[in-house]
Amino acid sequence: MTKKRKLGRGVAVVGAGMSPFGMFAERTSTDLFIEAFQEMTGSVDKGFEPNDIDALYLGNFTNDFFVQQSHWGAILVDALGLVPKPATRTEGACASSALAFREAVFAIASGFYDIVLVGGFEQMSKQSTEQVAEGLALAASPYEREAGFTYPGVFGAIATAYFDRYGATREHLMNVTIKSHENGRLNPKAQHQRSISEIMASRIEKAASRGQSPPGWQDEKEFLADPQANPVIAWPTHLFDCSPISDGAACVLLVGEELAASFTDTPMHVRGLGQASGRNLHAADDLTSFEATRFAAREAYEMAGLSPADIQFAEVHDCFSIAEILHGEDLGFFDPGTGFKAVAEGLTRRDGPKPINTSGGLKCKGHPVGATGVAQLIEVWQQLRGEAGERQIPAKDLRFGAAHSMGGTGGTCTFTILERW
Amino acid sequence: MTKKRKLGRGVAVVGAGMSPFGMFAERTSTDLFIEAFQEMTGSVDKGFEPNDIDALYLGNFTNDFFVQQSHWGAILVDALGLVPKPATRTEGACASSALAFREAVFAIASGFYDIVLVGGFEQMSKQSTEQVAEGLALAASPYEREAGFTYPGVFGAIATAYFDRYGATREHLMNVTIKSHENGRLNPKAQHQRSISEIMASRIEKAASRGQSPPGWQDEKEFLADPQANPVIAWPTHLFDCSPISDGAACVLLVGEELAASFTDTPMHVRGLGQASGRNLHAADDLTSFEATRFAAREAYEMAGLSPADIQFAEVHDCFSIAEILHGEDLGFFDPGTGFKAVAEGLTRRDGPKPINTSGGLKCKGHPVGATGVAQLIEVWQQLRGEAGERQIPAKDLRFGAAHSMGGTGGTCTFTILERW
Repeated sequence: MTKKRKLGRGVAVVGAGMSPFGMFAERTSTDLFIEAFQEMTGSVDKGFEPNDIDALYLGNFTNDFFVQQSHWGAILVDALGLVPKPATRTEGACASSALAFREAVFAIASGFYDIVLVGGFEQMSKQSTEQVAEGLALAASPYEREAGFTYPGVFGAIATAYFDRYGATREHLMNVTIKSHENGRLNPKAQHQRSISEIMASRIEKAASRGQSPPGWQDEKEFLADPQANPVIAWPTHLFDCSPISDGAACVLLVGEELAASFTDTPMHVRGLGQASGRNLHAADDLTSFEATRFAAREAYEMAGLSPADIQFAEVHDCFSIAEILHGEDLGFFDPGTGFKAVAEGLTRRDGPKPINTSGGLKCKGHPVGATGVAQLIEVWQQLRGEAGERQIPAKDLRFGAAHSMGGTGGTCTFTILERW
Repeated sequence: MTKKRKLGRGVAVVGAGMSPFGMFAERTSTDLFIEAFQEMTGSVDKGFEPNDIDALYLGNFTNDFFVQQSHWGAILVDALGLVPKPATRTEGACASSALAFREAVFAIASGFYDIVLVGGFEQMSKQSTEQVAEGLALAASPYEREAGFTYPGVFGAIATAYFDRYGATREHLMNVTIKSHENGRLNPKAQHQRSISEIMASRIEKAASRGQSPPGWQDEKEFLADPQANPVIAWPTHLFDCSPISDGAACVLLVGEELAASFTDTPMHVRGLGQASGRNLHAADDLTSFEATRFAAREAYEMAGLSPADIQFAEVHDCFSIAEILHGEDLGFFDPGTGFKAVAEGLTRRDGPKPINTSGGLKCKGHPVGATGVAQLIEVWQQLRGEAGERQIPAKDLRFGAAHSMGGTGGTCTFTILERW
């Protein structure tokens, strides 16, 4: 039933920048976005004139109610000195800027614009944890909210169903966490830049400095199994299974493919795009699979003429550890019910055959929700260009990388494949 | 400095539907949208299969904070039985669904999709007037809000500046109101369907039935000048200068131009598109002109190869009476400082040479903000097809009509020209 999609004009990514992700009490969405924009400007190898930007697409989810300010397009255009360039905000919960990226691609492929800035941003850390939980739940279905679900609860239920069906255990979630921290420690923009071992060592040192008896963890899994160190949030989801509350901004510059060479010798090309909607949890046929991820992936693979095996690495929406496992299956990287084994076997490590979330993922890079979709694509761009620094994937000849975003409990999913020619 | 824009593939409107606009205590956004969708489905002359829709674009401004529900794409796709079709929400304050329309055009023109539903919706009437005023002000600039401005205040200041500069008076605002009510009374979907004379007659009758002495208004302007009947909101903005608080939904079906003939023999074609951002009031060079309207209009005219004189009629964003006058000038229909005279001379009446807001405008049709942009385009579509019923423009050979939307205090403006071939 999927139509084969195509674009009338190719589109390439020629620049990218992001603010650090973290909790920044002193900084606004505008501050963070300007920082991302300045880094993007500097990233365009052959330089460019910001005033040549034709239009902006901006993903944001929560600023209406967390910051009490809507209509950010006009504000950021003015802050960047780009009046009268048009700006359009997209919102699809945590996939908001993944949607912005698609709209920018369409706007260029349509022939209407040539040079488009795509950004995402979010400012969450000034809320209490309870406010964030309640605010994010506005993206869940009304049924889920009436039932008292917030996101940790939803993903706890999903993990429970997955465990029951396939025999996975909490230890398999820990494998995801440990890998995310290994990658996050190599990402200078990440909110959490320490491995679990480093966190353990720091806590042991702190206990000693207070004259307390040192905790007796023998390895990272013992640390993660300790309810003092890693308390339960909504079983089996524990604190270290959850992406953090984050502030941050990210942006990329897209141009018509035939124009790319005047910006850089190493543009990355949009090879596949997919987006789909899924019934929320209350109506899902199966708690262990996201239908929107499956449809989005199929659309993108068919457009690209590629299969899951062709995708050499991916950023995957790991809002919670279990989500990374499920999406890896729904994207076709692993068969249903085998994703947890793939992680346990190290297949998704940076030096494995299918690296997932080399950025540290939402878990460690951070999850300023509106910025996440674009930030995932920036990781793909950097890896394809060989510019990921210490966390560069060691495999040679990277050609195809992809990013997967999800909004809500599977309500909106996107899959985007970038190619290095 | 404006580039000449073009689309790689033509796009046509082949269906349209809207709910009534008004205050509906018992109805949700979903209810209203389903009603609009059903009317749209019935409007497609040769019929079509809803499941052939490739994607949805949805404009909404306030549901995040007024209804405490975000991420409406997934909800409406599910409500319409269209899972797994992708849905993208756009937000640009009161221009939200005008932005959705553009994205649908780009998505089709890019070659990616063929058949796209564009909708808008808003649910405002369950808030108090104060809540609505404060909520809508989230789209203004932070500076305006810090200064205590809500929208009636902003447009009061703008009207004052215009009066001072060009010699207009409150009576000129009344002319806009009287015309809007004349049109609204002929629109069966409008929130306000009575002329000012009819409202006067009703109040005189009501006074008589209560045994009170009848008000002594001699004509519509005496009624509008009566501070009891038409109290001041923010001078010179009075109650009858303000668009109402409304609930409603609207949608249109867009297809690739080469496909249109299988849907209808009278598609309407997208001939010109423009969008721009403007500095908000605090930074504007001139309070009597909206720079974003000017830029958006120029872009659309250049794309279309048309001039303002070619546009035979238009829907113009009349959130307040003064806005209709200013935008008429910024769109090039009338010279700066002459818009108020044009209204006084009847040029913008339904039977005049440049009919403006034949629907009754935001003032009388209603202004469920997220639905407004699409609803304006529906009026243009109906007029071009000769299907506007009693309010059909009497001029023959309508070929070019246009819709202008504004978000915020000029932060985001769009201009869209439709053509009948």
